[in-house]
Amino acid sequence: MKKIPLLLLLPLCLCQTSHAADDLMSRANKLFKPIPTKAPHLKANPATAAKVDLGMKLFFDPRLSTSQLISCNTCHNVGLAGADLQETSTGHGWQKGPRNSPTVFNAVFDVAQFWDGRAKDLQTQAKGPVQAAAEMNSNPDLVVRTLKSIPGYLPLFKAAFPGEKEPVSFDNMAKAIEVFEATLLTPDSRFDRFLKGEAGALDAKEKRGLRVFMDKGCAPCHAGTNVGGSDYYPFGVRETPATEIRPAGDTGRFMVTNTESDRYVFKAPSLRNVAVTQPYFHSGKVWTLHDAVTVMGSAQLGVKLKDSEVADTVAFLRTLTGRQPKLSYPLLPPGSDETPHPQLK
Amino acid sequence: MKKIPLLLLLPLCLCQTSHAADDLMSRANKLFKPIPTKAPHLKANPATAAKVDLGMKLFFDPRLSTSQLISCNTCHNVGLAGADLQETSTGHGWQKGPRNSPTVFNAVFDVAQFWDGRAKDLQTQAKGPVQAAAEMNSNPDLVVRTLKSIPGYLPLFKAAFPGEKEPVSFDNMAKAIEVFEATLLTPDSRFDRFLKGEAGALDAKEKRGLRVFMDKGCAPCHAGTNVGGSDYYPFGVRETPATEIRPAGDTGRFMVTNTESDRYVFKAPSLRNVAVTQPYFHSGKVWTLHDAVTVMGSAQLGVKLKDSEVADTVAFLRTLTGRQPKLSYPLLPPGSDETPHPQLK
Repeated sequence: MKKIPLLLLLPLCLCQTSHAADDLMSRANKLFKPIPTKAPHLKANPATAAKVDLGMKLFFDPRLSTSQLISCNTCHNVGLAGADLQETSTGHGWQKGPRNSPTVFNAVFDVAQFWDGRAKDLQTQAKGPVQAAAEMNSNPDLVVRTLKSIPGYLPLFKAAFPGEKEPVSFDNMAKAIEVFEATLLTPDSRFDRFLKGEAGALDAKEKRGLRVFMDKGCAPCHAGTNVGGSDYYPFGVRETPATEIRPAGDTGRFMVTNTESDRYVFKAPSLRNVAVTQPYFHSGKVWTLHDAVTVMGSAQLGVKLKDSEVADTVAFLRTLTGRQPKLSYPLLPPGSDETPHPQLK
Repeated sequence: MKKIPLLLLLPLCLCQTSHAADDLMSRANKLFKPIPTKAPHLKANPATAAKVDLGMKLFFDPRLSTSQLISCNTCHNVGLAGADLQETSTGHGWQKGPRNSPTVFNAVFDVAQFWDGRAKDLQTQAKGPVQAAAEMNSNPDLVVRTLKSIPGYLPLFKAAFPGEKEPVSFDNMAKAIEVFEATLLTPDSRFDRFLKGEAGALDAKEKRGLRVFMDKGCAPCHAGTNVGGSDYYPFGVRETPATEIRPAGDTGRFMVTNTESDRYVFKAPSLRNVAVTQPYFHSGKVWTLHDAVTVMGSAQLGVKLKDSEVADTVAFLRTLTGRQPKLSYPLLPPGSDETPHPQLK
């Protein structure tokens, strides 16, 4: 190889680096989209200020549970990135739920809700935990009776669902919660600023991590606005993960579709805010991003990632933490003498 | 009796009514004081903006409990008038605590904390539930280890306790929570507006209720800024309440002082926001103000109040609901790989 004076090389290097960054940015923009700053329009359930306000109150209201202790915010804590730090959620009677509670932030952009996608949207999802015996343990009748017994809710439901004969209903509860949850977005992560053209938003290590993420095969399952959440994949494409991480009894989407090819198939979760929503996987058995990336390498890609590749990928994943929504704690309308009492049993 | 033309009587009646209202207002002002709009100065623990901000985060942080599910706000829900709607609080492992959780709102004006006054101030109180096995089930070591593992807390503790060598401590946690809780005031109730001279702030029924409250002997125990909370009294001065309402095993202040005369002695609770903090008494066994007032009549005063007296008193008690504090939901600093995992057992 011919020797070139070092000084002459420098402009070329800078140029290459700059070109590489542009190339990285344009590759990334083909795969990912930034989180919008405004809630998307929900065609079947258009938002109004009154509906969002009602949904926010309901989201925080523990009276949707029979114990009157557990609200949506218990497992989707808006102060803790919309999740609950538990392996799997703890609910009514201190029962352990079957799966890790995913963050509610940006969940509106997922193809469907729950790890197995059994709820087509947030509206359908909202009805699940309210009725699950190991979660809020209530039922539509009790919820509606409770809401009707709280005088302050009637005007709020009327304002949110004008002209309806029976505005206080289980369906409308879910609709209001859906439009509120659709506002829980985390825009302006450093990665999103990079996508929007700010090359310096990621440092060299993070850029290397993004490259690993795209080159090694993470992006096919984790792409789009939510860097995931858009389709279902077998957990264990190449290697079966340890039984603790993928317990035999939870066959994922198979339990929804009863289709053999859906055995151990789960929704690839969104990686938005992944650095602040540990623990990981549907079992919640993995606590560090380092371990989660390593498991993904072997289980999904069939590779043993180098330490440096894991570290770079983790650095990239940390750039997916967005601006967390700032909310006022809602003042919940007081009950009346007719309000059902909490039931702890 | 001489007949007087009706028309001549009218000015006299109006004059008497007006005089009676003034008289009621001046009598009430001798017994009660409005809730201030600003937190009181705590001599031993002066507030700063940084300390209040830290205290608010800690108040909402479930990582002070071993399960990482229960925060101060669980039992003192700021959206539910600072209480929890439970007979007695439900804590770690779904255990039932021994007593009803009193509202944290205006608690700073109480003579001491807990139903038996065993904590001299909010700072001492805050350390109790964190360590109680049936509540948050943690201990000072674990709390400090957890707080130190959350990188975002160090600068907040440093700012709240400048110049201290070990700012992240269990004591400082309690101090910060105290100054935050001291800001949780509910001024401007209709009763307070009446005390401040707005005669029309109470209607005729509510004024009759206030009169009953003062004339029948409620006010000697329920006076001052908090309409209660200033001293200890036997529950059952005249008649022993039903065992369900005053369970035999809970001897109240006797368990603190071991003094025979303190058997079944409790702090007379503040009646501020009593209409929105059911259920009532330390046992939480009474759900309506109507029943609570009736029990008080027989147990403490030895009288059977007339239905109209009960109804008037309840109407008066409803005027004690003040303006609830409006808070932003705090964004809690994320944990790290070193943060202890939740323990549910």
